[in-house]
Amino acid sequence: MMKHNLIYILPFAIVFFASCNYHQKIEDPKQNALIFARGDKNTTDNFKGEVWVKSLINADSLNETAVGNVTFEPGARSKWHIHPAGQILLVTDGVGYYQEKGKSKQILHRGDVVKCPPDVPHWHGASADTAFVQIAITGREKGPTVWLKPVTDEEYNKT
Amino acid sequence: MMKHNLIYILPFAIVFFASCNYHQKIEDPKQNALIFARGDKNTTDNFKGEVWVKSLINADSLNETAVGNVTFEPGARSKWHIHPAGQILLVTDGVGYYQEKGKSKQILHRGDVVKCPPDVPHWHGASADTAFVQIAITGREKGPTVWLKPVTDEEYNKT
Repeated sequence: MMKHNLIYILPFAIVFFASCNYHQKIEDPKQNALIFARGDKNTTDNFKGEVWVKSLINADSLNETAVGNVTFEPGARSKWHIHPAGQILLVTDGVGYYQEKGKSKQILHRGDVVKCPPDVPHWHGASADTAFVQIAITGREKGPTVWLKPVTDEEYNKT
Repeated sequence: MMKHNLIYILPFAIVFFASCNYHQKIEDPKQNALIFARGDKNTTDNFKGEVWVKSLINADSLNETAVGNVTFEPGARSKWHIHPAGQILLVTDGVGYYQEKGKSKQILHRGDVVKCPPDVPHWHGASADTAFVQIAITGREKGPTVWLKPVTDEEYNKT
């Protein structure tokens, strides 16, 4: 009987490993994030590291709110900056950081939301180990984003 | 040998069916939608059918943009209504409808975005068979939503 064992064990093993691979693929947080396109790789110096930006809604004269999908690869971050009309962030995936000048760094997870007041210097980005995906909702009625200094590694790593 | 077949086939069958159930669970579109809480069941008469609303960001004097997560069960819909400062919709799951007065009904899917101009009568809701989840971004600086007539079944079903 023993010589026939492989015939029975082989399909069991195939299904087991196939189901494991499927499991890993679906549980990858990046799979769930793809509600909106990742867009184009940032080429400005307003960010450090790999950042992808997809504009979803442009501001116009009737509704001056812009909406974009921003993906930060691990370690990527914005410079310190100001939005003259403020900004709202909706975290759709991953783990990231948000810090306002003079306050502690906040750790953000999928499902978190942030309301950044007008004219408050702040930065945001991914955590060191995990990518971060956010929808950014930005009023343009008081002018464009004002970019400030880069976030130093000391600032980025401070807990 | 044949009397031992069950011993080999049973674990194979268990893994096979377990992997199928897992697959179904993850591929259910409602599983992916739960980035933001479903919130509370609507109790106003501004909607027909089962609608759930979660406020994510309230408007304030510095940033008058409100953000909410709205879930329409199949067949559920808003009344016709107007946003004095316009609205932006981001579809995060399911299949829904959006129609502006005098235009054809649009079918919306996960990943679609809509910019509804100020003061244009419109309605939105789920398709007849599939629930619909949207993030609604609404400027409050020109006053609250103005609710109009219910959407008739004829309007809802018209293709």
